[in-house]
Amino acid sequence: MNQSSLQHKMGWLFKCLPNPMTFLLLSVIIFIFVTPPEVDAKTHHYKWAVRYEFKSPDCYEKLAITIDGTTPGPTIMARQGDTIVVELKNELQMENVAVHWHGIRMFGTPWNDGTEGVTQCPIVPGDTFVYRFTLDKPGTFFYHGHYGMQRSAGLYGLIQVSVPNGVVEPFLYDEDRSIILNDWWHNSTYEQAIGLSSLNFRWVNEPESLLIQGRGRFNCSLAEFGGKCNQTNAECSPHIITVVPGKTYRLRIASVTSLSALNFEIEGHNMTIVEADGNYVEPFVVKNLNIYSGETYSVLVKADQDPSRNYWAAINVVSRKRTTPTGLAIFNYSPNPPLTPPPIAPSTGPPWNDTFSRFNQSLAIKARKGYTVPPPQTSDKSITLLNTQNKIDGYNRWAVNNVSLLLPATPYLIALKWNKTNAFNQSPAPETYDDYQNYDIHNPAANINATYGSSIYRFPFNSTVDVVLQNANMMKPNNSETHPWHLHGHDFWVLGYGLGKFDPVSDPMKYNLVDPIRKNTVPLHPYGWTALRFRADNPGAWAFHCHIESHFFLGMGVVFEEGVEMVPRLPTSVLGCGDTKRLRMPVKSGGSSLPSGFIYLSNLFVLLLLFLN
Amino acid sequence: MNQSSLQHKMGWLFKCLPNPMTFLLLSVIIFIFVTPPEVDAKTHHYKWAVRYEFKSPDCYEKLAITIDGTTPGPTIMARQGDTIVVELKNELQMENVAVHWHGIRMFGTPWNDGTEGVTQCPIVPGDTFVYRFTLDKPGTFFYHGHYGMQRSAGLYGLIQVSVPNGVVEPFLYDEDRSIILNDWWHNSTYEQAIGLSSLNFRWVNEPESLLIQGRGRFNCSLAEFGGKCNQTNAECSPHIITVVPGKTYRLRIASVTSLSALNFEIEGHNMTIVEADGNYVEPFVVKNLNIYSGETYSVLVKADQDPSRNYWAAINVVSRKRTTPTGLAIFNYSPNPPLTPPPIAPSTGPPWNDTFSRFNQSLAIKARKGYTVPPPQTSDKSITLLNTQNKIDGYNRWAVNNVSLLLPATPYLIALKWNKTNAFNQSPAPETYDDYQNYDIHNPAANINATYGSSIYRFPFNSTVDVVLQNANMMKPNNSETHPWHLHGHDFWVLGYGLGKFDPVSDPMKYNLVDPIRKNTVPLHPYGWTALRFRADNPGAWAFHCHIESHFFLGMGVVFEEGVEMVPRLPTSVLGCGDTKRLRMPVKSGGSSLPSGFIYLSNLFVLLLLFLN
Repeated sequence: MNQSSLQHKMGWLFKCLPNPMTFLLLSVIIFIFVTPPEVDAKTHHYKWAVRYEFKSPDCYEKLAITIDGTTPGPTIMARQGDTIVVELKNELQMENVAVHWHGIRMFGTPWNDGTEGVTQCPIVPGDTFVYRFTLDKPGTFFYHGHYGMQRSAGLYGLIQVSVPNGVVEPFLYDEDRSIILNDWWHNSTYEQAIGLSSLNFRWVNEPESLLIQGRGRFNCSLAEFGGKCNQTNAECSPHIITVVPGKTYRLRIASVTSLSALNFEIEGHNMTIVEADGNYVEPFVVKNLNIYSGETYSVLVKADQDPSRNYWAAINVVSRKRTTPTGLAIFNYSPNPPLTPPPIAPSTGPPWNDTFSRFNQSLAIKARKGYTVPPPQTSDKSITLLNTQNKIDGYNRWAVNNVSLLLPATPYLIALKWNKTNAFNQSPAPETYDDYQNYDIHNPAANINATYGSSIYRFPFNSTVDVVLQNANMMKPNNSETHPWHLHGHDFWVLGYGLGKFDPVSDPMKYNLVDPIRKNTVPLHPYGWTALRFRADNPGAWAFHCHIESHFFLGMGVVFEEGVEMVPRLPTSVLGCGDTKRLRMPVKSGGSSLPSGFIYLSNLFVLLLLFLN
Repeated sequence: MNQSSLQHKMGWLFKCLPNPMTFLLLSVIIFIFVTPPEVDAKTHHYKWAVRYEFKSPDCYEKLAITIDGTTPGPTIMARQGDTIVVELKNELQMENVAVHWHGIRMFGTPWNDGTEGVTQCPIVPGDTFVYRFTLDKPGTFFYHGHYGMQRSAGLYGLIQVSVPNGVVEPFLYDEDRSIILNDWWHNSTYEQAIGLSSLNFRWVNEPESLLIQGRGRFNCSLAEFGGKCNQTNAECSPHIITVVPGKTYRLRIASVTSLSALNFEIEGHNMTIVEADGNYVEPFVVKNLNIYSGETYSVLVKADQDPSRNYWAAINVVSRKRTTPTGLAIFNYSPNPPLTPPPIAPSTGPPWNDTFSRFNQSLAIKARKGYTVPPPQTSDKSITLLNTQNKIDGYNRWAVNNVSLLLPATPYLIALKWNKTNAFNQSPAPETYDDYQNYDIHNPAANINATYGSSIYRFPFNSTVDVVLQNANMMKPNNSETHPWHLHGHDFWVLGYGLGKFDPVSDPMKYNLVDPIRKNTVPLHPYGWTALRFRADNPGAWAFHCHIESHFFLGMGVVFEEGVEMVPRLPTSVLGCGDTKRLRMPVKSGGSSLPSGFIYLSNLFVLLLLFLN
């Protein structure tokens, strides 16, 4: 059965759905007549305690956010169709938390997306929040804190989803290996966040270290606080990827960096890219892989080199001027001792500013033949999102169409379901930049001021939406950065990339409508544009934002809504902030049922006691 | 009118009150027939933003919690009977907050006491909480963070309450001056809290600096981070107390230290103690004043020394081995230049371990003649609270009667009003230590293990309660510390102090029932006992705890309840944590009204979409 064509044919069904009641009746009918293919779907239960602990991932000790004592947290390993239940207890003392399940589309559970300010209130210390969701597709995903700049404190981990039993993947390998990449700072998340949001702006600067599977190596002789850095700490011994000579490995790679675009390579080994963000890629061979924050890849690596020695697995910063040392793991040929360093110096990576080769790698990633899900050939709507760096009242901000996102005190999904129309600006968010035609993307704007905003984009359910991301010069001349944009709740088709300004007449004619890759995160290259298309088929409210932690923190994101009327009553566990505390409670269960007029008088009486005291 | 005798006579009224309805009717009657003496009571409105900011109170830069940009925050100046309204907006990014109004009894507004875990849920970032309360008595008070160890991050300020217009105080002075004292660390509150609560225990160590009115002076040559310390920063120029020669000043002094007991002196000047915790003291003259965390005093100081020079106002640590340099302000005789240092070196204070002289100063503080409110001559109940340092499962903790307090996820007051009987242990908290008679307070306990607990003490409304605080040896031999105990919602009478173990037969016979001072915070001296009495006349749930930040954080506190049935319906603003999110909401206002059975089916349907995608 070609599932995508079935979905396409069923489009009429969605379009004629008049109300949630019909939707539900339909679901009953379909539930009865369609037998789900996953007869052996499992539920995986986890109980996680989220805590601050002193950790030394790069030999320098600082407070990191851990799950059950580790950073990265435990890897979730399950199959497509399985249900994941995470009882997450906040033990951060005074800090709230929320965890996003990056790449999981949360069909039917949009309130468990874990995006503070969009889908839930933050989980306060002492509380336990239960995330429950189904793994809708196989592939490589991850989870991370999605509250303030909490991700950069170490709250992250991998999700590895296998195909269902009996399903065969379109490539062969002997074993899986997984690594998650990160960048790491020695100052605290608070120092970063306060510095960024102060009038006296302090940039976070380049990371002190790069981490592979939570392990890096800072040169302690550079540490200002000598006592806090210890090169012999076992926590910062390098990550080991052990392989057996002759075998082929599927290496799953995820990047959760806060700032850095990375280039990954395994000394002397080719890599065949086969998966991107949970979608099969038409295989192609690379010497190194550019990976942006929020992306995941699977590459096939054959242990086909001299087996008498080990090799470096190395990550280097690209797209920003490199000051951070190479991050290293050891690609260990068994039975060589794992910690024996390779005999030659590790690669320091390609030139950091070789935009063109990175652009070309983006272009090379296509959907795998035989597994192509073609996009709808036309769209119902197209919006352009101009990315700019701005000032607002003297503060440094990022903006989209000159609006810098401020998350409201009442999260969007809750505000939408409870008709809290004062919670955010109800007027539509701008679908392009004012006078976009005359905007010069190659130079700093004449007027660098933007405005704060909380408006959202609301799409008809099941409509097809095109988004053109347009990059531009920053406030400083001759500077344009790579922004990896991540969409929650969806995979989109990547229709095209360009360098320069998007031409709304000629560029759409070059869109790849045949075999575009589907992804949830896509780079917007310096001075370039990226076009994507998605079906608004997932009822809920969804963040779409630059995955650079400090950029989203400074307003570089938007929110999409579709079909929110189909979302059932939200669980009360997502409430607790903004307007949601003022939702009325029952009079029973011990609360006084006295009319409020009396309350004032009783208070007066108690106040009178003061004169008797 | 002798108000206290009236209150005493009205005791029958309280005891015969059968239910809240009668209570309210009574309040109407009293409201109509009793004219309040405060005809000119005002309401003072404040809008405060609570933020982290980089500050250098002792020349070393770190993140501090500020109110409207300053630490200490603004001083509240008002009159008895005035109402204070503080709209407190949490702008701490990822951290919650709660602010306690120390010494204000919160008659009729127990939910505004600001004690996270006891009277309210924490205020999450982005939310605004409105504290509204009446100043029930004149005197010197203060406010501070009461969440985790947040007070030590710099969230505090003074409250100065004058007598009503037309009322004359029993001492003369020309002008008011106020200072608040603090101790200060260079690491973060998180580093402190995590270190204390780790199996690999890390003590907070002695403070780096002592602050007078938020200003101290660290020796930057000792700073490991040279770049963060700057002795020329205006933020750490000393606080100036300017006086005119010949005039007499009422110097209001509050201590909000996290750890340190302090000794305060003004070089060459006598001080006459006239107020303690908002109660008039029978005046006596001291050369220096011992002040414990949580206490306030007013002293009269006459500028009667050589007017051609300035003088040091100095604070030194007592009761703990002193490693922190003297904290200094300048007592500036106008018109001398304020920053001209006094010609001689400042005092380094009395010997840190002279317990006896501090004990004697405690004994010397009596209620002022003519303003004495005698305590009830008998009590209805007496409890003994043995203070011990313990281990629980290897963690360092403090305990009271072998129980170490763990604040529940649902604050006590909310749990009590909403009959959430699972929120905390409903069995009564222990009224003495098991086998107290044989407990050797002079040596470490044979069994150092304690247990966690959440039980509370419930007293009949308007009953009279005696509390005997008993100190003991810590886990380390020959160590017993001073613990300043603070009671929320009440002033208590200090019936007596002793050194050694309390004798329940002979010691009560020595109680001062004639002119005991009333206070809200009282020291428990090393190896000593302190006896106090209070009337349980304030409906609510109230914390009673050691005011050393790390001690309460490690469980050294209890909770008292009285008359909670008289507390009216709580405002929803205090909710949002623990069980309080699960209180049912109305079906209207946009929420789907579909039965929950359908919700499951609709989710199933949406999950089916995954196979079509």
